[in-house]
Order: sequence, then structure tokens, then C-alpha cells
Amino acid sequence: MSSLRPLPGKAVIREVGMRDGLQSIATLVPTERKCEWLRNAVAAGQGEIEVGSFVPPKLLPQMVDTAEVLAYARTLPGLFASVLVPNLKGAERALDGDADLMLLPLSASHQHSLANLRKTPDEVVAELGRIRAARDASGKKTLIEGGVGTAFGCTIQGEVKESEVLRLMQALLDAGADRVSLADTVGYADPNSVSRLFEQAVKLAGERFCCGHFHDTRGLALANVYAALQQGVSRFDASLAGIGGCPHAPGASGNVCTEDLAFMLEAMGVATGLDIDALLALRSEVSGWIQGEPTHGTLWRAGLPRTFQPGVAA
Amino acid sequence: MSSLRPLPGKAVIREVGMRDGLQSIATLVPTERKCEWLRNAVAAGQGEIEVGSFVPPKLLPQMVDTAEVLAYARTLPGLFASVLVPNLKGAERALDGDADLMLLPLSASHQHSLANLRKTPDEVVAELGRIRAARDASGKKTLIEGGVGTAFGCTIQGEVKESEVLRLMQALLDAGADRVSLADTVGYADPNSVSRLFEQAVKLAGERFCCGHFHDTRGLALANVYAALQQGVSRFDASLAGIGGCPHAPGASGNVCTEDLAFMLEAMGVATGLDIDALLALRSEVSGWIQGEPTHGTLWRAGLPRTFQPGVAA
Repeated sequence: MSSLRPLPGKAVIREVGMRDGLQSIATLVPTERKCEWLRNAVAAGQGEIEVGSFVPPKLLPQMVDTAEVLAYARTLPGLFASVLVPNLKGAERALDGDADLMLLPLSASHQHSLANLRKTPDEVVAELGRIRAARDASGKKTLIEGGVGTAFGCTIQGEVKESEVLRLMQALLDAGADRVSLADTVGYADPNSVSRLFEQAVKLAGERFCCGHFHDTRGLALANVYAALQQGVSRFDASLAGIGGCPHAPGASGNVCTEDLAFMLEAMGVATGLDIDALLALRSEVSGWIQGEPTHGTLWRAGLPRTFQPGVAA
Repeated sequence: MSSLRPLPGKAVIREVGMRDGLQSIATLVPTERKCEWLRNAVAAGQGEIEVGSFVPPKLLPQMVDTAEVLAYARTLPGLFASVLVPNLKGAERALDGDADLMLLPLSASHQHSLANLRKTPDEVVAELGRIRAARDASGKKTLIEGGVGTAFGCTIQGEVKESEVLRLMQALLDAGADRVSLADTVGYADPNSVSRLFEQAVKLAGERFCCGHFHDTRGLALANVYAALQQGVSRFDASLAGIGGCPHAPGASGNVCTEDLAFMLEAMGVATGLDIDALLALRSEVSGWIQGEPTHGTLWRAGLPRTFQPGVAA
């Protein structure tokens, strides 16, 4: 056996293609197709799916039907359905819809935060506090995740200090986040910086550290996942067919590709509960809906190795 | 700092695009362009290049000018020029041409070996012994590398046992190989299997273990390099623009992409001596020569991060 520390025995791939993927492309996918996607994803073993985003419809018309998609998701047994919320208003809609989890993104880059959210990171922390109060007052069980983005740098500001990322993560926890996560929003991370920052984040947040979100803009997403796995992280966002892209790099990859990540994890013996053949079939179906949009990934073309054996959960 | 073991401070990317890349595509690149490639690669900091293969011209017309390309390579100061040789006959041509190194590939998969080389792996070991005798008799300084391929499995045979890979590696060393290396010829490796096998290979061969050769068929090449780096390996084969492909998976990626690998290493502080901008310019030039052939990689599209700082050799 390797001298490296053992990897987690199982991991969760949280599907974000319906949110981070679809919001980044021009094609509008109709609600009934999103529901079909959900149904087939659950059938393929996907237990956690980010089904949409409660942002103003004017900003992201692709997400206008999030309430309906969430309502449908609630009918699928065993599915843990999350949504992205940019603020208290979005959070109220997530609570109304009985989402299992709502993710409030925070940008650790002050300049990115001001440009994209028109708030400083600390104002976002304060908003999380208000969301926590609203959740507690509602009596709902919806969990609150504070997601620290641009955690490895930013296309506007450039460097983002690790100390600032960790300070904001602690502030989110203090303000009432049930969980926190880290995102390499623009594909600046490398396995070394991932090891370093995730090790500190896991130390800081313990069990409340829940997820790594990697973009494959510069091809390092799977290597970065592997580095985070070595720090004990066992939940990763991913997008079917790598749908998405990067607004700052036209044609570049989006989130790490779900089916490629599933292959890497299962090949290493990290059980995901996913049926990779079913995922590949779903990839093919969804790709057909968004023809002309860039898709990514390699497994769909190469197929599984002859020797492939899925991981078995301990 | 991370609790993981430190990575090597520097690493060598051995360019194999002119051999493994060009031999896998239909387009014939003229000799003068290969020489231009060599010249510009050296100018970009590439110090080790596999310039061709001494195989029968009927088998690989793309490699027919290997002797001329090697002769040109010998005129470039500081370039360590290697060639692939399938047998003693090829080795004699490598010695005639004063190659710095000749790589004899061995397939650890018996079925692959019989199908591709019409020899058992142990017959290839015996051939290496004859090559060693010829080299010693010639008085030349050409190094002999025994490369163990299909080390992680094979599309024909399926499983290849680690014990058999290591037995053959030891046999190559015993037969007189100056160096040995491991290749994931068909893209079956994952970071876990890489950690495990490379750890044992490094233990077995020590300083004589020289290189990891990864194909990106299923997108894991960079993650696999990172796993091998953690075992102290510091030389990797790579192909500019990821030129190549996989005969068993049409359209699939070939070797790990040189410029993406250079980015990953430098971003992690592992110095390569490479000028990434110059590599990207060369990629663009070479891609133009082979229009219509698949190329791969991500960095050319996304560009370097704003925060990028090259590694500095200790």
C-alpha cells in the first residue's frame, strides 16, 4: 500500500450542471427537460443536486423556473435538493420551496465581490446572519451553506490571500452557516495550493467543511480534487458533460465534469454510488438538448477501461 | 504548509510530441519543420526531446527521417536527444547517430507484447541485453532506457499485475538498462494505482528510475503526474498540444499536454526551466502544420492566471 494517507472510502458528487452549468450557456432548457434530467440523475445514483438559483429572472433567465424545478425535486424520494441564493430574498424563496440546502456564495476577492454582488464580503457575511435568522424563524430544516469563492485568486483582483479566505470562512460560521465550502471560481488553483488551503479549511471548520468546487479552466480540476481528497474532503461539485464555461475565458471548460470525476473516484476505490453507464447515457441526452454549446470531458469518448471495477463503500 | 511530503523542487518535461505524437497522426510533418520544432522547443527551454523512432519506415512513414532529425538535434547545444528503438537493429542506428539516449519499450502485457512486437516481454528483456552489449562494444555514450508500458492494464489483455511490471523492470535493470521508466500506454491509470506502483518502482530502481509516461485518454494524466510527483518522480513525458491520440479510442487524447503540464508544475513551484509563453507560441505554430488533426489541452485557450508566478529552481 502507498505511504500516502488513505483517501476517504466514499465521496459525494454534488451535481451543479443544472445551476452553474445551465446559467453559463445561452440555450434555455425547458422546465420539463430539467425535470427529466433530475429524474434520470437520481436513477443514475445522484443523491445531491443543485437544482437552480433564486436570482432575479432578469439577471439569469435560465433560472426563472427554479421554484418549479425545486418543487419537482421534492417529489423524488431520496434526493437532497439544494439551490443557490444570492441574498435574503432568494433565501426566503428557498425556504418557501423547502429546499434541503441553500448555498450563499461569498467572493473572497473584494473587487470580484463588489463587481458581481455589489457588496463587500463582510456585507455578505451579515446577509448570511439575516438568512440564518429567517431560517430559524421559519421552522424549516433547510441547511445554510456559505461558499467562499475566488478562494485561489481572481481575474479582477489577482491575488486573494489565504488568511482572508479563512477569515471569511470563520465569519460565515460565526454568522450561523451550517456548512462552509471552498470554490476555485476561475480555475486558478493547483494541487499544491489546494492541499495547503483545504488542510487549513478542514482544520478550521471540521465537520462543517462540506465541499470543494473546482473549475477545469486550465485542466487541473481532477488533480485538484485528488489533492483535496488527500485532505479528507469527500464532497465535490461537478457538472454533467462539464457544461458551463468561464465568462473570463471564452470556450474554456466549466466545472469539473461529473462523469470523469465519477470515473476517477471509483477507479481509486472511492465509492460514489453512481452508475457511470447511466451517467454517460444522461450526458448524451443532455448534450443533445444544448447542441452547439461547448461540452467537455473525456470518458464519454474513451469509455471505461476493460479492467474497471467500481469502488465499494466500506 | 501542507502535511504532505514536499514535491521535487524541479522537474524535467521530456517532449515526446515529435515521436509519440507525430507517429499517431496521419499528417506527415516534413523534416525541415521537425527541425524548426526542435529549434523552437530548445529556445523555449526544452532540454530533453525524443526526436523520433528507429522503426522500419514501412511501419511508420512519419518516422522515416529520424536519422536526419537526430543529426540536426546533435547540432543544438544543450539538447539531450533521445530516440525510441524497437530492437537491436534500431539501437544500432541510434548508436550510429550518437543519440544521447535510446528507449526500448517493453509491454508488460504479454498479449499486447505479442500483438504489437511479436515478442514476449522476456524476449524484449533479452534484446535489451544484446543492445547493452552493442552499446558497450561501440564505445558510445548513448544511455539505454527500458520503458515498461501497459503498466496499468491493457486494452487486449485487461489486467496487468503490478508484480509482473516490477519483475520485468528488475529484469531490464539486470539485463543492463541504465534507466527504467513506466508508461500508462492506454490511459488506465488513476492517481491511486500510480501512487502504489510508482512507490514500488522507485524503491526497486532508485536513481535509475527516470520517468513517468501518461496518456490523457480518460482525463487523468495531470492527476496521475501529481501522484507520481508525490513519490519523488521528477521527469515526465509530454506532447506539445497533446498531439497523439489513442488507437483504441478514436478522438481520445494522447500524451499529457506539454504546456498544461508545464503550467501545473510551475504553478506548484516545481521549476521546469520552460518559458510557457514560448511553448504556447510553438503550440500554435505546430498546430498549424497539422490542421485537421485533433489537438488537446486547455491553457492555450484560457491563458495563464493573472497571479501566475513560475517556479524557481532551488
